[in-house]
Amino acid sequence: MLYCIGLGLSDEKDITLKGLEIVRRAERVYLEAYTSILMVSREKLEEFYGREVIIADRELVESDSDVILKDANSTDIAFLVVGDPFGATTHLDLLLRARSLRIPVKTIHNASIMNAVGACGLQLYNFGQTVSMVFFTETWKPSSFYDKIAENARIGLHTLVLLDIKVKEQSEENLARGRKIYEPPRYMTVAQCASQMLTIEEIRQEGVYNKDSLAIGIARLGSDDQTFAVGTLEDLTTADLGPPLHSLVLVGKVHDMEMDFIREFAVDSAKFDAMFPKNI
Amino acid sequence: MLYCIGLGLSDEKDITLKGLEIVRRAERVYLEAYTSILMVSREKLEEFYGREVIIADRELVESDSDVILKDANSTDIAFLVVGDPFGATTHLDLLLRARSLRIPVKTIHNASIMNAVGACGLQLYNFGQTVSMVFFTETWKPSSFYDKIAENARIGLHTLVLLDIKVKEQSEENLARGRKIYEPPRYMTVAQCASQMLTIEEIRQEGVYNKDSLAIGIARLGSDDQTFAVGTLEDLTTADLGPPLHSLVLVGKVHDMEMDFIREFAVDSAKFDAMFPKNI
Repeated sequence: MLYCIGLGLSDEKDITLKGLEIVRRAERVYLEAYTSILMVSREKLEEFYGREVIIADRELVESDSDVILKDANSTDIAFLVVGDPFGATTHLDLLLRARSLRIPVKTIHNASIMNAVGACGLQLYNFGQTVSMVFFTETWKPSSFYDKIAENARIGLHTLVLLDIKVKEQSEENLARGRKIYEPPRYMTVAQCASQMLTIEEIRQEGVYNKDSLAIGIARLGSDDQTFAVGTLEDLTTADLGPPLHSLVLVGKVHDMEMDFIREFAVDSAKFDAMFPKNI
Repeated sequence: MLYCIGLGLSDEKDITLKGLEIVRRAERVYLEAYTSILMVSREKLEEFYGREVIIADRELVESDSDVILKDANSTDIAFLVVGDPFGATTHLDLLLRARSLRIPVKTIHNASIMNAVGACGLQLYNFGQTVSMVFFTETWKPSSFYDKIAENARIGLHTLVLLDIKVKEQSEENLARGRKIYEPPRYMTVAQCASQMLTIEEIRQEGVYNKDSLAIGIARLGSDDQTFAVGTLEDLTTADLGPPLHSLVLVGKVHDMEMDFIREFAVDSAKFDAMFPKNI
């Protein structure tokens, strides 16, 4: 059996009891380590599980998945994913491959940013489609996210923006020369995201949002030092939310109770009250 | 401290290690038992936790929450919620009340239908706003869900439909006479939901969907006998997915890989292939 096991959001104790039991008895344990990260090291996980954990990078999962699936017909393989296995990024191709090899698959679900984002105080019901924000370069500033936010905003929905992480990436030069030298990991911040959003609004000028649009910066959701920063997009371009992972919510139509709840996280309460007075 | 702890989707072992540690040492343990249910009894939970579990019905949570919050400034109170505490229904009012009493609050997240629905094979990215379906009566057939589905469908997004559950409800007669006699619990089925959806389409006639629209019935997500039934809305009106809980997804624009994945769950594979040929 291939077990896809969600690890939740923060540390080694966010695994479920069901998940842990499988990890402790599985033949091999892989950790998918390129779409998200926990806030603890592999060593810490290994110590807690009492098991060796094999890091599964993108290459292994996407090009070499038969290595992971080897003998999964006769033994149990655990494939660990930060968040939920069907969270921000799905692993449908691995599951389809398992299916074609007639390997049974079972999923052990867990929290992911896609549902835990409700902790910011906005109702999950009122989120539209989720978008991703990649690191811009001088010459590459993809703006498909802008059209999706426009679709959400037009009907009053909030948008969760997931921020790029770069793990085990090669520089263009090293890639061109075939050198397996990897850059240090990079994690987009809320400030970078807000700033890139405003850059695209400047270019597109369709008024989907502007520097005064209300947004929520989120950092280390689910950990003891999780942080929410509520303010305008402009406020957030200078907000320092500390270490990764970050995400951002562009706020749509808000109910009073939600407004009461998020006000607590305002980076500037006086400005917040002036800009977003309560509907009385 | 008030701890809001998600229990996940299915049974007593879906709690996280972090959650279980708190349950075992908390002063009092409440179980919110009116917005969703686990597939195990309270007794089973009590035995597993080694703790008494106090059932928190709607009345207690919404009208009498100070009972729950009593002494939470000086001791630890665990408030258990099936799924994630910020899942299908939020408990913002309880948290706001705690905040006004200066009681610190911490959330232990877990899987909920809102993210685990990805297990059906559709990318979570492409879901729009979530809607709820209540039990219709002869005279009450609310159709606000129809407008929301229309908004999602217009931009190609999937819609997750959460189905009504009636726990500890009084009949109109017993309510009128002030008799605290409660009806047996009722859980809406996928078949009822599909049929109500078609009723509203017949009334509204706006062509938001029709009997041939592709949908996915989901039952007991996260349990060992979880079931997916893929077919047209008409197919689903006669599908029997067994015991609760059920949910339904009205499918929007689908990618090839998603189509490959959901085909496995077709209630009628030949019909599925004829109606939804692969884009080649």
